[in-house]
Amino acid sequence: MKDVLASDRAWVGFDLGGTKMNAMLFNDEFEVRGRRRKKSRGSEGVEAGIERIVASIAKLLEEAQLPRESLGGIGIGCPGPLDLEEGVILEAPNLGWKNVPLKKSLEKEFGCPVFVCNDVDAGVYGEYRFGAADGARTALGVFPGTGIGGAMIYEGKIFRGKTGSCLEIGHVPVVPDGALCGCGRRGCLETIASRLALSAEIAKAAYRGQAPYILRVAGTDLANIRSGTIKESIDAGDKIVDEILRNGAQQLGLVLAGAVNLLAPDVIVLGGGLVEALPKLFLEEIGKALAKQVMPSFSKSYEVRIARLGDDAGAMGAAAWARHNVEA
Amino acid sequence: MKDVLASDRAWVGFDLGGTKMNAMLFNDEFEVRGRRRKKSRGSEGVEAGIERIVASIAKLLEEAQLPRESLGGIGIGCPGPLDLEEGVILEAPNLGWKNVPLKKSLEKEFGCPVFVCNDVDAGVYGEYRFGAADGARTALGVFPGTGIGGAMIYEGKIFRGKTGSCLEIGHVPVVPDGALCGCGRRGCLETIASRLALSAEIAKAAYRGQAPYILRVAGTDLANIRSGTIKESIDAGDKIVDEILRNGAQQLGLVLAGAVNLLAPDVIVLGGGLVEALPKLFLEEIGKALAKQVMPSFSKSYEVRIARLGDDAGAMGAAAWARHNVEA
Repeated sequence: MKDVLASDRAWVGFDLGGTKMNAMLFNDEFEVRGRRRKKSRGSEGVEAGIERIVASIAKLLEEAQLPRESLGGIGIGCPGPLDLEEGVILEAPNLGWKNVPLKKSLEKEFGCPVFVCNDVDAGVYGEYRFGAADGARTALGVFPGTGIGGAMIYEGKIFRGKTGSCLEIGHVPVVPDGALCGCGRRGCLETIASRLALSAEIAKAAYRGQAPYILRVAGTDLANIRSGTIKESIDAGDKIVDEILRNGAQQLGLVLAGAVNLLAPDVIVLGGGLVEALPKLFLEEIGKALAKQVMPSFSKSYEVRIARLGDDAGAMGAAAWARHNVEA
Repeated sequence: MKDVLASDRAWVGFDLGGTKMNAMLFNDEFEVRGRRRKKSRGSEGVEAGIERIVASIAKLLEEAQLPRESLGGIGIGCPGPLDLEEGVILEAPNLGWKNVPLKKSLEKEFGCPVFVCNDVDAGVYGEYRFGAADGARTALGVFPGTGIGGAMIYEGKIFRGKTGSCLEIGHVPVVPDGALCGCGRRGCLETIASRLALSAEIAKAAYRGQAPYILRVAGTDLANIRSGTIKESIDAGDKIVDEILRNGAQQLGLVLAGAVNLLAPDVIVLGGGLVEALPKLFLEEIGKALAKQVMPSFSKSYEVRIARLGDDAGAMGAAAWARHNVEA
C-alpha cells in the first residue's frame, strides 16, 4: 500500500545560484520528469526572486501535468550563510539578498515540506546519491571556483556544524601571513588555489608577457580568464599557465592529504568548471600530493574521482536530500 | 520493568596502554564500583597479556561481589591499528603484540558483549560523556604526547573511517619536505609539535647551553625530558623552553584552526600529560592561533577546554561506548 502511494510522489530539486537557477522535477524513482533553467536576476529584489522560483516550479508541474498535491517535497540548494532549521537565506552577496524566508514562502505556496540546504552540500550529496561518489561511506567533495567549496557526506547524511554547513576547505590556513582572503583572514587555501587566485596569477604572467595566448584572447583582466580560456591556453602552449595550474592543484592536494588523514574518506570527488576542463591535470597533481602525504595506513583506502553530474548535481542532490528528510 | 533489570547491570571499561593498564567497574548509573591499575608487561607475550586483562576484570567483579552474569558489556580501548569489527589488535608496537583477538577471548571468558576501540577514541568519548566536552554536538579531542592523538565525537558517536579510527591530526602535513615522521611521511604536525618533537628541540637547546635547568636535571637525553621536567624548567626560568613550547602550541593551533574550518566543532578538548602540565600556555597560544585563522563566521561557535578526566578518560569512555553499542 505504501509503495503504491509512494510511487505517485514527485520531488523538486532547485539549485539557486548567483547567476543561474536550475529547477528539476523527479518522480519517486528519481527519473527526470522536467527541467527549467533561468537567470537568477538577484538584483530585481527578493520578492521578484521568490516569484521566479515559484513560477519555475509551478511551470514544471504544469508541463508534467502533475497537481501540487503530488509533491512529496522540495529541496533547494542556496548560497550561504543559511539558517538551515528555519530555511532562511541569511545573506547571499551574489544575489544581493538578506534574510529571505525561502522555506516558509515555498511551503505556503506548494503545501509540501521544503528543505533549504547549502549549495555545495547539495551538489556533493547529488554526486553521492547519483554520481561519482555513489554509495560511499564517507564522501568528501571539493569544488574549486571563485572560492573552494567543500562538503562531506558521512554515513548517508550531510556532515554539518551546529548551525550550518562546514567543510570550509578553502579556508584551511596554508600561507603564514599570506594574501588577504575573502573571509577576512590571510593565507587561506583559497588565496593560492581557487580559480580566482589562479586567474590572478595567470593575469600577472600575461602582463609580464609570459602567457601570449592569454594576453591575446583575454588580456590581463582576470574576469576574462575563465576555465575554458585556461584550458585553451595550456593546449595552445602557454607553459606558464600549465605550471600555475599544476602548482595550485598540488597545494589543493596537500590540504586534501591533511583532510584524508583527518576524515579517512573512501571517495574524494573533484568538481566545478576548472576541474571539469582539466580533469587529467587535477587528478595527476592531486594524486601525487596525496601519495606523498597521506599516512601509509590510509593510502589504499580512498579513490579520487571527477564529478559526473555537472550542473545538475545541486538540483538532484537537493531533491534527494528533501526526500531523505521526509522519510527520516 | 526494564529499568529494574537495567539498574542491575555492571560495565567494565579497560584502557590498555603501552606501559599501563587501567580497569574500571561501573554500575548502570556509571558510578565507579572498582578500579585496578597494573603494568601492561607486553614483553611477556600475548597469552600472558590476555591473562592479565582477564584476571584484572575478574578481580574487579570479585571485589564488588558481582557475578559475571551481571556484566552488561566490556569496552576496551587499545593502541592501534585495530580491526574494530572483529575486535582484533592488528599491531601494537609498544606492546610488541600482533593479531590479538581480544574481543573473542574476552567474550568467551565473560559471556558478555565486548567492544574494542581505539584508545584515543575512548578517551575523547569519555570526555564527551563525563568530562570537558559533556554533551557537545561535535567534540574534537587532541592529545599531544609521543605522537599527537586526535578523535572526534559527532552527534553522539565516535567518528570513524571505513575500517577504523581517523582524525589523525598529528599527520596533517605542515612542513614541506620536513623532518621524517614516525608514519613514514615527512613534515607531519607531529614532527614539530608532539611532546617528543618538543623534547628533542629542548635537548638541542640544552646541548647548546641555552637551557641550564634542563641540562642539570635531565641532561641531553630526550627520554628524560618529560612533561613534568618541561614545566619545572619553565618555572625555573629556562626562557628558551617556554619559547619552544609556545611555538609548538601555535603550530598545533594553526592546524586546529584548519580543523575547525572543516569540522565546525563546538568543543575542542586538549589533553595529555604535557597539556595538563601547562594548561595556561596551551590555551593562550592555541587561542591566539585560532583567533587568527578560524573563519569569522565560525569564530564564536567553539570553546577550547582542558581535559578533565586525566588517566581515567580511556576506561570511562570505553565502558560508556560499550553500553552505547549494547543499547544501539
